[in-house]
Amino acid sequence: MSSAARFITLEGCEGVGKTTNANLIESILLEAKLPFIRTREPGGTPLAESLRELLIVKRSEKIHPLCEVLMVFAARAQHVNEVIRPALESGIWVLCDRFTDASFAYQGGGRGVEDVTIEQLENIVHSDLQPDLTLYLDMPVDMAMSRIQARELDRFEEEQQTFFEKVRSAYLRRAEVHARFHTIDAAQNLENVQSDIRDCLLDFIQSAVSE
Amino acid sequence: MSSAARFITLEGCEGVGKTTNANLIESILLEAKLPFIRTREPGGTPLAESLRELLIVKRSEKIHPLCEVLMVFAARAQHVNEVIRPALESGIWVLCDRFTDASFAYQGGGRGVEDVTIEQLENIVHSDLQPDLTLYLDMPVDMAMSRIQARELDRFEEEQQTFFEKVRSAYLRRAEVHARFHTIDAAQNLENVQSDIRDCLLDFIQSAVSE
Repeated sequence: MSSAARFITLEGCEGVGKTTNANLIESILLEAKLPFIRTREPGGTPLAESLRELLIVKRSEKIHPLCEVLMVFAARAQHVNEVIRPALESGIWVLCDRFTDASFAYQGGGRGVEDVTIEQLENIVHSDLQPDLTLYLDMPVDMAMSRIQARELDRFEEEQQTFFEKVRSAYLRRAEVHARFHTIDAAQNLENVQSDIRDCLLDFIQSAVSE
Repeated sequence: MSSAARFITLEGCEGVGKTTNANLIESILLEAKLPFIRTREPGGTPLAESLRELLIVKRSEKIHPLCEVLMVFAARAQHVNEVIRPALESGIWVLCDRFTDASFAYQGGGRGVEDVTIEQLENIVHSDLQPDLTLYLDMPVDMAMSRIQARELDRFEEEQQTFFEKVRSAYLRRAEVHARFHTIDAAQNLENVQSDIRDCLLDFIQSAVSE
């Protein structure tokens, strides 16, 4: 009999190597022959991807922080109900690039929306669902910023260092509080980063499938 | 010295004559020489109008009710903070085609989102702001539906009679509870409808400017 499917999230600021390491996680899940989907937030459904586009495009209109956090949770409500929950209920693991921890980090830490507001929205949208494992890729902000300089920057990526310092601090505070967080030192060379991720994930898979 | 600006909302289902009567209200405010803006929800800023477009376009993807109500409140957060509140604070009256009562009617009554959830969102987005006057245009649903048949219907307008019955019931429940509601019998001939609106609005303006 197969064990329950697990919900894994990957978190971190721009430039910490999320995409590269999501590819690694995907390959480990494939090796373990686990059924899974890989998705992302904001996004993961056509409507949620349209909301993502509205969120990240640079515009002359200043987006109010409450509008931003409500848009993120609107996309999340669609994604959770139409994709994540149905997958988990059919025994399919979910690997998601960012989830509600990112709302606490970006809209909370970065934009100053109060934690209590984000907690209310979390409770409205997914009171009964939390990630089982959150891999948080941590790196000093100046290092991460230097790594995205070659990109065409979106509305978030073009923020300044003080914004990302607040985002990182919020992530680190959550990592202290939530046992599901595993902080990966993403400032190491890639080989060591990936070795840490592999060790953590193999342990996690081992306990999940032996239940 | 000028009195405080007032926030007037116009509510009602599709087909009850909101646009025609918004034009009338606008002309009465002009005659009274009151500074005002006319706006609408969802919408009223470029970003909020983009959210409106995502909400009303017909799509194969089913929109989850929680996603819908969060999108509406995201647009509202932007509209309240960037347009409505700044106008009122500068002494400019606001005439808005639909506001949070419509969320209780459409997403609550129509889609089944719990009132307590909508109240939480209302509290997050505009705990300190409510309309001063709400003109609710009421009409039997079959009559309203027959009046929109010639239109190209959007995602809301193409809903069935049972949906609009639930929307209307929710509006009528709010009209009973909130003293700011004035229910206009929109099933009368237009002359009488407009006479009722004019009487109500002139009384309201009279008390406002005499304060």
